[in-house]
Amino acid sequence: MKIYKQNIEIKSTSQIEFVDITNQVEEVVSNSGIREGQVLVYSPHTSASIVVNHNEPMLIQDFMRILYRLVPVSDRYSHDLFEIGRSKSSDGRSNGHSHCKAMLLGVSQTVPIEKGKLLLTERQNIFMAEMDGARTRSIIVQVIGL
Amino acid sequence: MKIYKQNIEIKSTSQIEFVDITNQVEEVVSNSGIREGQVLVYSPHTSASIVVNHNEPMLIQDFMRILYRLVPVSDRYSHDLFEIGRSKSSDGRSNGHSHCKAMLLGVSQTVPIEKGKLLLTERQNIFMAEMDGARTRSIIVQVIGL
Amino acid sequence: MKIYKQNIEIKSTSQIEFVDITNQVEEVVSNSGIREGQVLVYSPHTSASIVVNHNEPMLIQDFMRILYRLVPVSDRYSHDLFEIGRSKSSDGRSNGHSHCKAMLLGVSQTVPIEKGKLLLTERQNIFMAEMDGARTRSIIVQVIGL
Repeated sequence: MKIYKQNIEIKSTSQIEFVDITNQVEEVVSNSGIREGQVLVYSPHTSASIVVNHNEPMLIQDFMRILYRLVPVSDRYSHDLFEIGRSKSSDGRSNGHSHCKAMLLGVSQTVPIEKGKLLLTERQNIFMAEMDGARTRSIIVQVIGL
Repeated sequence: MKIYKQNIEIKSTSQIEFVDITNQVEEVVSNSGIREGQVLVYSPHTSASIVVNHNEPMLIQDFMRILYRLVPVSDRYSHDLFEIGRSKSSDGRSNGHSHCKAMLLGVSQTVPIEKGKLLLTERQNIFMAEMDGARTRSIIVQVIGL
Repeated sequence: MKIYKQNIEIKSTSQIEFVDITNQVEEVVSNSGIREGQVLVYSPHTSASIVVNHNEPMLIQDFMRILYRLVPVSDRYSHDLFEIGRSKSSDGRSNGHSHCKAMLLGVSQTVPIEKGKLLLTERQNIFMAEMDGARTRSIIVQVIGL
């Protein structure tokens, strides 16, 4: 059994953005030399998620609109009151809505690997779902298998 | 360490449907001969998810109603404009809402295995959550362990 | 390859509560002796989820408020009609909304391990998201690796 881990740096360019990281994940799987197993794509962040779906730009806009409606930016978030600096747990940004969106989507995805390839179908892509950009994020890609 | 993979064919009979696939997943775990480890149930589709909860038909209807309210079919989805055929990324169906529902729920679930049995409690079942049926889907069941 | 499993008992003290279980999960990882791999934190319950995010109490309140708005307690849940005792599938509680909230959040989280430590960043904590407390829950922590 082999375990291989590599971080990939991902740049987001707006507040909410789905960045397609499929190629970078495939490269890590290739680097790992693992032929059969799984890849765990893990976001060590509290306002960025990992999502698998179709990289169709209009669809991604539809989904973002839904996220904005389910977790409106215009709502009042108690978390943001802390951001003025009164709390040590503050992360210095008015991003209550970003955390909440990220919690709905989750921090990781696991994709099976066969013969060295991710078992993604043609329309499946792996996204880092940025909810509090623009930033540079470090995403953990861990491959487990034979 | 052993890795065993098998696809299971699942038929949905309506647009939105939770199909209980617990028995099929248990059969694959049994076929694998793996006694200690995990099973990854993975949907290689962009409009079908994997969910674990109670197979109580009224509850499933409650949850579907919530999905319909959070992601209404009656909304306008930009993705659906592509379905007329103007985009190569089109998948040929007016299913923007289906993709969005699937993104909320995610593509996989991992369940631990002990002594050859899934550690599901009595009220836990594994569902393929069809969001764009009726169709036949192929679900990947991958078992990892000893 | 080693596999190590331990259950941890978690007490919730109100109906909806995010209980920080990071320390207990770290202890199981330490007990496992596994240095490189993954930990699967799995809720074998249908009304309690596992979530990873920031343990900032105001943020957790914000997120609970969103859950209550997306899945209102005041709605009518068909599941609850069963609770009067007419169905064998009943679990004896009027908790349709609890199951639905849990389904939105999912039953497990997987976190990578390196040099014996969970790869959680400073602001990431692992929560059991109780949706139908107060209760004592048993959460499965399974470590896989080398």
